[in-house]
Amino acid sequence: MSTNTYVTGGQEYTRDTNYIEDRIIRGGDAPEAGRWPVEPGRYRLIAARACPWANRTVIVRRLLGLEDVISLGQPGPTHDERSWTFDLDPGGQDPVLGIERIQDAYFRRFPGYPRGITVPAVVDVPSGAVVTNNFPQITLDFSSEWTEYQREGAPRLYPEELREEIDRVNQRVFTEVNNGVYRCGFAGSQEAYDAAYDRLFTALDWLEERLAGQRFLVGETITEADVRLFTTLARFDAVYHGHFKCNRNKLTEMPALWGYARDLFQTPGFGDSTDFQQIKQHYYLVHKDINPTQIVPKGPDTSGWLTAHGREKLGGRPFGDGTAPGRVAPGEEVAPGHGA
Amino acid sequence: MSTNTYVTGGQEYTRDTNYIEDRIIRGGDAPEAGRWPVEPGRYRLIAARACPWANRTVIVRRLLGLEDVISLGQPGPTHDERSWTFDLDPGGQDPVLGIERIQDAYFRRFPGYPRGITVPAVVDVPSGAVVTNNFPQITLDFSSEWTEYQREGAPRLYPEELREEIDRVNQRVFTEVNNGVYRCGFAGSQEAYDAAYDRLFTALDWLEERLAGQRFLVGETITEADVRLFTTLARFDAVYHGHFKCNRNKLTEMPALWGYARDLFQTPGFGDSTDFQQIKQHYYLVHKDINPTQIVPKGPDTSGWLTAHGREKLGGRPFGDGTAPGRVAPGEEVAPGHGA
Repeated sequence: MSTNTYVTGGQEYTRDTNYIEDRIIRGGDAPEAGRWPVEPGRYRLIAARACPWANRTVIVRRLLGLEDVISLGQPGPTHDERSWTFDLDPGGQDPVLGIERIQDAYFRRFPGYPRGITVPAVVDVPSGAVVTNNFPQITLDFSSEWTEYQREGAPRLYPEELREEIDRVNQRVFTEVNNGVYRCGFAGSQEAYDAAYDRLFTALDWLEERLAGQRFLVGETITEADVRLFTTLARFDAVYHGHFKCNRNKLTEMPALWGYARDLFQTPGFGDSTDFQQIKQHYYLVHKDINPTQIVPKGPDTSGWLTAHGREKLGGRPFGDGTAPGRVAPGEEVAPGHGA
Repeated sequence: MSTNTYVTGGQEYTRDTNYIEDRIIRGGDAPEAGRWPVEPGRYRLIAARACPWANRTVIVRRLLGLEDVISLGQPGPTHDERSWTFDLDPGGQDPVLGIERIQDAYFRRFPGYPRGITVPAVVDVPSGAVVTNNFPQITLDFSSEWTEYQREGAPRLYPEELREEIDRVNQRVFTEVNNGVYRCGFAGSQEAYDAAYDRLFTALDWLEERLAGQRFLVGETITEADVRLFTTLARFDAVYHGHFKCNRNKLTEMPALWGYARDLFQTPGFGDSTDFQQIKQHYYLVHKDINPTQIVPKGPDTSGWLTAHGREKLGGRPFGDGTAPGRVAPGEEVAPGHGA
């Protein structure tokens, strides 16, 4: 997500939630009607490491072992007025799509596309056009529609019997936390900020209490709900605490949440997809309206992410009847010095 | 201090260190030559609560019990291009000097005074003119020149036998910490910031190590050196950590320094002169160049300042052969809700 960042005088920040809502589904037979078929090798996931909404898709794709059937294109951490760009790739072009900016794939789909040019986006490689950028659905469909192509031992991240609770938790986490940090950072007035801050920490206190007694957000295993909360927590002290003024306390000062976040971070798929350097560069360089100097902080010290969290004592089975994923796919590793 | 805040492209921040260096001394007999007499009731100390350099003078004046002989004028937390203003006083005027802005007292001394209009400043009440704004000397002279008027039990903050060590510590604390945080915040380039950050935390690590084994910075009692370090530490998590990007860690994450800071905070004269609300308003409202939204963070939670610090076990006698000061002078209390 995140190209549509604006501060409007006196206003609360509101996120543009209109997306291209096509889906890729088992038996999808009508792309023209928004139903695309599951088909290995056909799609390319465009996901900037910096973006929390894109980071979710990278984590889920890896947990489920979909790397070989859905390729990954990675824009750099920053973007200009128009779009995220492939500035880290050789020649500044995505090696599969052959484009310099993700905007091109949106225009291939809808010439002059007027809404936010966002990541994550799933692109139909043959046509080079965006299929969907509807981020909350993308990961659910990875879980539910791509089952045939998931790895042996893939966890059930969105099990039927827990969907109601996962959806309920996700809803509160989305409005109050995932989006809540942006509501603080992009508040257009002191009053809007103050209200946003109270909302955010009210929700974090709820999570702190919930996670004090259970290892994961819903049920006994890692689910979609954990993925969605994690990518915000991973950015909390690095960016949201200072840049977005979410500064009642650091994540490290909330014992249950900090233990929970480290537990996930140290689980394959989470920490190994977290690039603190790109995360900081993204926010501090792109948001010139709140950081006009564009200086990127050196802190915080991230070594604490690798310390013992002691959450095993709460029980739980991270991958349920499944297994942890293996090594990160070659070429998809976080750069040395960018992790914890 | 602090009116002269500037970011120059690519440059390291340098502080204007030219002040009006007149002194008020025992037997001072030549104001025209910069030697003013110690004289109770003659001078007014102008010190904004927000400013760390001014805060020092308020602390020392109170520790020494000089409230009745040197009156206190307090500008509000913000200032415009021209000067700090008395916007908190009735009618927006200092009740003794009858001026709206401290600039007027500088102009009374030197018409069109071209340098920084800074606090703390000591004003000669009869003439309404600034005597000195040379902040490092003001507190030393309170200690050494005003002895006749200090309270019974006033501590020795700058004892002869420790001056050499105090001066040496003060020098490093000034360049690396007091001013080091500004060097981070006003760095004109990423490179200047990165270097400033490393310098700052190198010094904080030195202090952390030094204070792990001793209760105060120099000797067995509170000295001028502690006052000077304290006012920066009190602002660290509230402002410097986020606003100035001094964010390797919070003060609360350095056990010795955090215990030391709380020990002082809980000592009469320190915490009772610390106004977190004015501190935050000052930096976040005045520095539009680094905080263009002028939104003031609600955090951090300051309740930790009042928690047990356990530093008594290191020994030391805070006031040496003296005693703690009594209650804050009426009218000089920190406003309810502005403290910890």
